[in-house]
Amino acid sequence: MAAVEIPGGHGLALPLRAGQAVRVVNTHGTQVVDTWALALGDTSEYLSVEHTRRMQFSLFPKLGEPFYSNRRTKMLLLEEDSFPGQHDTLFACCDKWLYQHYNCAPGHRSCRDNFLQAVFAAGFDATSVPNPVNLWMHIPVHDSARISIETPLSRPGDHVKLRALIDTLVVFSACPMDVVPINGPDLAPKPVHVEVVG
Amino acid sequence: MAAVEIPGGHGLALPLRAGQAVRVVNTHGTQVVDTWALALGDTSEYLSVEHTRRMQFSLFPKLGEPFYSNRRTKMLLLEEDSFPGQHDTLFACCDKWLYQHYNCAPGHRSCRDNFLQAVFAAGFDATSVPNPVNLWMHIPVHDSARISIETPLSRPGDHVKLRALIDTLVVFSACPMDVVPINGPDLAPKPVHVEVVG
Repeated sequence: MAAVEIPGGHGLALPLRAGQAVRVVNTHGTQVVDTWALALGDTSEYLSVEHTRRMQFSLFPKLGEPFYSNRRTKMLLLEEDSFPGQHDTLFACCDKWLYQHYNCAPGHRSCRDNFLQAVFAAGFDATSVPNPVNLWMHIPVHDSARISIETPLSRPGDHVKLRALIDTLVVFSACPMDVVPINGPDLAPKPVHVEVVG
Repeated sequence: MAAVEIPGGHGLALPLRAGQAVRVVNTHGTQVVDTWALALGDTSEYLSVEHTRRMQFSLFPKLGEPFYSNRRTKMLLLEEDSFPGQHDTLFACCDKWLYQHYNCAPGHRSCRDNFLQAVFAAGFDATSVPNPVNLWMHIPVHDSARISIETPLSRPGDHVKLRALIDTLVVFSACPMDVVPINGPDLAPKPVHVEVVG
């Protein structure tokens, strides 16, 4: 397939057969992409960051290692990463309650709702929202205890390649956050590109 | 109510009205207690460690601060803690797939199944298992990046007091782990005590 654009603030779900990979490109360099994976055969099995931490003994995803599911299945391999170490798994995705907290108007887009809408649009169901892998989200850890929200360090064209180890529905959300500068100091969500590759 | 014993390896769910508190006592000092909370009025709202991290900007729960729900509601207050800072929120609870990974026989008890069974026994339903607060589980963070499994630092009689800020079903599991020494070097899960207090 040709590269598909995900508009800033929007989501997309993409089925991958075991062995296929998806390349995610941070076209403008500043865009956080919340990423989930559900097992195609049983969507109650999902990529679990809390299980992956337990299996990798790391706060951050490791290049060349798999993400595990909530049933400890090897699900997605982080096969390429042009800027490794800059992906967050500690923070929940943004949701309508966060935008309420920031006094935004009702109906503000959110990664949570993007996840659900993308899953539904792909013909699947979900009743809960796992904690995502927040690609390129810059949440440094200080003194092994504190965490902070910082502007992105990623660069235009930075990319990751994720290879499906089982049949998987991968779900992306180009994060709509426009209140804190997690998507860059201009507070403007921007498009990213995804492409199924060999 | 008088203090209730939770046998090592078993679980218990306890409804708390807003304003009530529960005291959890690590009777023998070495026992990890996985802890969840569901909103009594709508059990799809749950204590979310990933939302709490985002609101507290901390890897570890903070004494005197609330745990937040997946809707960013202040849910449970960590009001007392005789040994603060030693509670993990990074690791998934143990489950049948972890014990399979360790080649244990089928049917090994797990915190995940304890959660579901305790919720059902209290008359409620759950279809997914949130990431718990692992009271007293000693998972230190090294160099702001790596994590490891260590024997507990907690002492006999260490306790926490959790105050409900909304009507809440709190769920505890005295972790059945007997393969790695997370519940002490003797690999023997032990009873803990819980008590609803003013």
